[in-house]
Amino acid sequence: MNGNSSAVGPSGQTRGDSEVVASVATLGPTDVRAAFGKILAARHDASVKMLQDWIALPTVAQQRLNVQEGADHMANLLRETGFQRVKIVPTNGLPGVFGTLDAGAFKWLGIYFMYDVMPFDGSEWSSPPLEGRIVDKPNVGKVLIGRGAQNQKGPQAAFLAALRAIQASGRKLPINIALIAEGEEEIGSPNFRQVLGEPEVLSALQKCVGVVVPDLSQTSNGSISLLLGAKGTVEFQLIASGERWGRGPTIDIHSMEAARVDNPAWHLIKALATLVQADGYTPAIDGWCENIKPLTDRQRDLIAKTARITSEKDAMSSRGIRRWINDDDYRASLERLASQPTINLQGLVAGYTGPGGMSILPTRAEAKLDLRLVPDQTKDELLLKLDSHLQRYGFGDIEVRVTGGYDPTETDEDSAIVRAERAVLTRARVEYSLVPRDPGSWPGVFFTGQPLNVPACSFGLGRGGNLHAPDEFMIIESVDPRVAGYDEATIGFIEYLYQLGQE
Amino acid sequence: MNGNSSAVGPSGQTRGDSEVVASVATLGPTDVRAAFGKILAARHDASVKMLQDWIALPTVAQQRLNVQEGADHMANLLRETGFQRVKIVPTNGLPGVFGTLDAGAFKWLGIYFMYDVMPFDGSEWSSPPLEGRIVDKPNVGKVLIGRGAQNQKGPQAAFLAALRAIQASGRKLPINIALIAEGEEEIGSPNFRQVLGEPEVLSALQKCVGVVVPDLSQTSNGSISLLLGAKGTVEFQLIASGERWGRGPTIDIHSMEAARVDNPAWHLIKALATLVQADGYTPAIDGWCENIKPLTDRQRDLIAKTARITSEKDAMSSRGIRRWINDDDYRASLERLASQPTINLQGLVAGYTGPGGMSILPTRAEAKLDLRLVPDQTKDELLLKLDSHLQRYGFGDIEVRVTGGYDPTETDEDSAIVRAERAVLTRARVEYSLVPRDPGSWPGVFFTGQPLNVPACSFGLGRGGNLHAPDEFMIIESVDPRVAGYDEATIGFIEYLYQLGQE
Repeated sequence: MNGNSSAVGPSGQTRGDSEVVASVATLGPTDVRAAFGKILAARHDASVKMLQDWIALPTVAQQRLNVQEGADHMANLLRETGFQRVKIVPTNGLPGVFGTLDAGAFKWLGIYFMYDVMPFDGSEWSSPPLEGRIVDKPNVGKVLIGRGAQNQKGPQAAFLAALRAIQASGRKLPINIALIAEGEEEIGSPNFRQVLGEPEVLSALQKCVGVVVPDLSQTSNGSISLLLGAKGTVEFQLIASGERWGRGPTIDIHSMEAARVDNPAWHLIKALATLVQADGYTPAIDGWCENIKPLTDRQRDLIAKTARITSEKDAMSSRGIRRWINDDDYRASLERLASQPTINLQGLVAGYTGPGGMSILPTRAEAKLDLRLVPDQTKDELLLKLDSHLQRYGFGDIEVRVTGGYDPTETDEDSAIVRAERAVLTRARVEYSLVPRDPGSWPGVFFTGQPLNVPACSFGLGRGGNLHAPDEFMIIESVDPRVAGYDEATIGFIEYLYQLGQE
Repeated sequence: MNGNSSAVGPSGQTRGDSEVVASVATLGPTDVRAAFGKILAARHDASVKMLQDWIALPTVAQQRLNVQEGADHMANLLRETGFQRVKIVPTNGLPGVFGTLDAGAFKWLGIYFMYDVMPFDGSEWSSPPLEGRIVDKPNVGKVLIGRGAQNQKGPQAAFLAALRAIQASGRKLPINIALIAEGEEEIGSPNFRQVLGEPEVLSALQKCVGVVVPDLSQTSNGSISLLLGAKGTVEFQLIASGERWGRGPTIDIHSMEAARVDNPAWHLIKALATLVQADGYTPAIDGWCENIKPLTDRQRDLIAKTARITSEKDAMSSRGIRRWINDDDYRASLERLASQPTINLQGLVAGYTGPGGMSILPTRAEAKLDLRLVPDQTKDELLLKLDSHLQRYGFGDIEVRVTGGYDPTETDEDSAIVRAERAVLTRARVEYSLVPRDPGSWPGVFFTGQPLNVPACSFGLGRGGNLHAPDEFMIIESVDPRVAGYDEATIGFIEYLYQLGQE
């Protein structure tokens, strides 16, 4: 999708800003592309510069880099976008930033931002990670390269550009905005509950029709998976040590002692082996699956449709996979992906880890795991069951070190924020599929769960790549008319706001 | 033990070399100290320099450092010690060096040397690792610091000094010497069988009363554990991978896929868990223990004696241990150490191994293990049983990568080389205990096994430290009269040769 695409609407139309202003009262969603094409073209360079300036100031939570500067910049971006009330919300970690833009509209929309980015190493990049240089990417178009271009400054800048364009046109926003930004998304949002617990934040978000996360959702062919929910996750490490166990050595010792000294690494292996069944994946912890809500017929239908319209071969080859679990067919693999909780082993580290071997009996062994949760499982419930299990089988000494996680999230496909999204995509002729549940995780439960209980989903045209990797990019001008560039993504947000305002 | 100790014999005796020469024909073991004290004192500086020059030329098998130079130096040391026939024996790896010193004596003694040393990093040393500097070590004495000082150039140099001193005295050696040196001891002697298979080497060693490894055997109080055998060992890694398995990913993928993609790390955990019983140490592989020869009453008596004369508290505290396996008492722990085969887990490495966690499903997982074998288990037998076990339980795809190992070794306490050792130690009033089986391992089976079938043990007074570590040292002059310095260790070897010649 770009300016030449009929899906985006006529470019080069001649009505000026003043004419558009005249139609404020009656502007409906179908008129948006006609009304804003020229405005966005005129504002293009400024919008790109806004993104580049933001990328130039990276906040990295892991390294506590640019903490106050990043929060101040976030607050300023909101002020410059017309937010009347902007507030930095302190937490035990990096602060949140909260702002409201009250346009006197009837409804409120919640928006979630993150102002932190992943760490980066410039030596691995083809252009400087903080420059936001625009380069030609063959068969893709002009792309802006920089840390945060996709995740998440790019789509967020496009959203701010949408708000600014509406106001620059002389119109009032069709819906009021309550925006909450956090600075610790990349480390698992450990303090985001504190931000949401701020009475002013809570009461503003409770008024909203839902909370939307701006995103670059398009794949290379322009299609979009519209996610109606996501699994929850818990990340934790299991650590066996001679110190805590009271058996085995408290330092690494010569392996000949194995005949008379217990080995914490074997202790961990025996504990791990009890967590999943012989198949190597089915959870083997008592009561683990008792709160699983089965997929509905509608959810199964949606999955069947995804199986029909997407390529199993691509899904396998991009991941180096030759068989699904249980030799399932593609549809069954997609049902598993949506419906099954998992106990995944991410890594192991114990004793000697170099080439070959070394004759030691280690004092410590660590396994890195993550759980994926489906409704109605909860993080607290599963961690309690894990603890009981370890106790019952004689592994109560093994430390369970939880480093992050949250419950699953679900949003109704008939909620206003999803209906508006579908309307915009249909009108823009963007192919989309409804996906009942993202097998990855995002902390939507902050919004869909207690105490807010509002719908939450992501939305956004446009495309990026190399998330969390060197040469992260966002497409600014796409060569493929089915894929939106920066300005088309901005138009998408404008349309979405008008659609929601009308709903 | 040093020159001032009555155990070592009178120092400052006045007989000159010529007088000593006169008594060649009748010199018995009891006269050795008197005969050689002065000769060694006169030769002391030259002997130390021989060791220093050797240390200055490190052969490191891991790094293929000074391969030919090290072998040539070894050969020259033998020639300069009067070996009439010296030969470099090529192998697929570093060459062996073989030499014979035929003194026209009635018997032959085999000697095992290694000319390679462990790698070293000079930045971690208090004096240069290749200098062989002599420094004062508080409460210990003058020590020579250098890579190989203890392991094994120090005691080997003392042995060569013994041969040279006897010849310098005008005497003929009381026993002929067949010496075999290898350059790959520190990487597990992968090609030593090739050296021993050389017909000239084989026929020379077959004539020997046994093979002795020069060593610094004394502990800090001067006592010696006389090892009558050692466990065998096999070092290997178990590696699970998506590639070999045909399941799971062939690259690390996002952990959300765990719902439908098999995890090679879980596959490895499940395989490992089948190797030992629930107690975390007893081998659980069919037939693993069927060839174990139980300890004899004599062996159990020797262990009971060790339990009486050594400190359980020291044994525990030096290793950070609070309980033995099964809450055994000390004697039972020592019996386990001598009698039980082990399957030890040295290390684990899979997927993400940094701090915290990372959402991946790894394509590869590796466990590092070692086995300890007791008579009559063999390496080939146990590896075959391990393979069958993995096949039978559905883990036949897991790679078993063997990186070293050999069978157990046993030497009769009534063999000539052990009898001579006990006689020398008794006469020198060195406390010693007979240890039925070293729970560590040494490849004595090269000599005690097929096709040689000769006794093999280590021998040597003196003491060193920091084996395989920075500041490796050998005591040159000991402040503790119970502990031998360099010259006393040399006298020990001279006495041993005379004792053996008489046996």
